[in-house]
Amino acid sequence: MLSVENLFADIPRVRPEEIITQIVRADDIRIERIVSFGQASPPGFWYDQETNEWVLLVKGSATLCFSDGREIDLVPGDHVLIPRHLRHRVERTAPEGETVWLAVHYGGA
Amino acid sequence: MLSVENLFADIPRVRPEEIITQIVRADDIRIERIVSFGQASPPGFWYDQETNEWVLLVKGSATLCFSDGREIDLVPGDHVLIPRHLRHRVERTAPEGETVWLAVHYGGA
Repeated sequence: MLSVENLFADIPRVRPEEIITQIVRADDIRIERIVSFGQASPPGFWYDQETNEWVLLVKGSATLCFSDGREIDLVPGDHVLIPRHLRHRVERTAPEGETVWLAVHYGGA
Repeated sequence: MLSVENLFADIPRVRPEEIITQIVRADDIRIERIVSFGQASPPGFWYDQETNEWVLLVKGSATLCFSDGREIDLVPGDHVLIPRHLRHRVERTAPEGETVWLAVHYGGA
């Protein structure tokens, strides 16, 4: 029943597509690990989510952009709460090595 | 409205009491950072919680014990889902430096 897993495990060495792994899924929340290898949101693409998202940058680096014009650079340990329906995009992730995110989605409408 | 904070910020240099900082508090979840400086649960003390707790060891090391006799050593990146009412205790945290945990509580009865 109890099992320990590691947030840094099972990351391929060759640069692949972004990997999203569901860690916890319950009625009210979803916890995911996201591993990026230099990926960014497609040009013109904006996330517009039904849930609040608390995101922690665990490893690597990234830049988030918001529809109000704010741009936020993230380094390991940085975390930000993105309220539902605040439009945002990932402008960049570190081109070298992997960027590991932890995302907690909650409070769907 | 949007603000970035860092999980490793504001940790005192002298070894103090354990620090629990609430990061997100909503109806359905609570996200906390816990910083330990060698602390463990008091002898004979067991947590018996009303909520599920997903816990990630971010920095340092620790050993968790469970009432079924299991003992789990955690290193950075390790995470474990502790179902509500599974009795557990923190047997030890790293004696040197700080141990940083991220805890997500959800699904209260």
